Amino acid sequence: MAQFKPDSGSAGASAQATTVIVCTSCRGADGTDARPRPGENLAAAVKALAPAGVAVHGVECLGNCKRRLSAAVVSPDSWTYVFGELSEDSAADLILGAELLRDAADGVMPWRGRPDSLKRGLVARIPPLTKPEQA
Amino acid sequence: MAQFKPDSGSAGASAQATTVIVCTSCRGADGTDARPRPGENLAAAVKALAPAGVAVHGVECLGNCKRRLSAAVVSPDSWTYVFGELSEDSAADLILGAELLRDAADGVMPWRGRPDSLKRGLVARIPPLTKPEQA
Repeated sequence: MAQFKPDSGSAGASAQATTVIVCTSCRGADGTDARPRPGENLAAAVKALAPAGVAVHGVECLGNCKRRLSAAVVSPDSWTYVFGELSEDSAADLILGAELLRDAADGVMPWRGRPDSLKRGLVARIPPLTKPEQA
Repeated sequence: MAQFKPDSGSAGASAQATTVIVCTSCRGADGTDARPRPGENLAAAVKALAPAGVAVHGVECLGNCKRRLSAAVVSPDSWTYVFGELSEDSAADLILGAELLRDAADGVMPWRGRPDSLKRGLVARIPPLTKPEQA
């Protein structure tokens, strides 16, 4: 569904894309502040795997610290998903989840085919403002 | 920041508003399925308090079941916030949080002035796709 954002400028293409947002400040199970943090490693791994049409951003804190290594998958006119309890090995799962959401005509990430880590680790899902009738 | 959505139709006004989304399927501490659920009562209370410019929607499940009664606050071009551990008395706190986010020029709900329940109960925050440079 097309959106016109007169102010989006060069960020427009990215703003339209299905996006994986990885918390780069998440610590590992040992709780140390050592760098790179597991979240940084995961963000780099997701970026390395991202296909065309899936953007990846790191963000300093997703506020989900109680459930450890976290990421969100966001797509225009779709539900937003937040996942926790991820690991540095979760990059392929996040990309698969992003592709499922990108290709979902109803804006819902299907349960069938969703990687186990994105079932167990679901922290929250938020409906899109553009489809309030679903909310 | 104005957005033009040619397809928004009658939902347009709502789609542009700062919105509180309350999980209406959340059970109380006793875990019973009795209706109305605490989430339904909270949604009704938030609706009753909502000022102009703040929309309220109930949604069947925000997927945050591990942290009980939940709501999200969403606003165009702003970070999205998910809160848990709310109670049926949290309506005024959610409205205050929505007003803080609606009025925040930087799209971030300020910590100062935020009700305690929206500090303790923060489950996750997700940056807006329209400002990927912040993410």
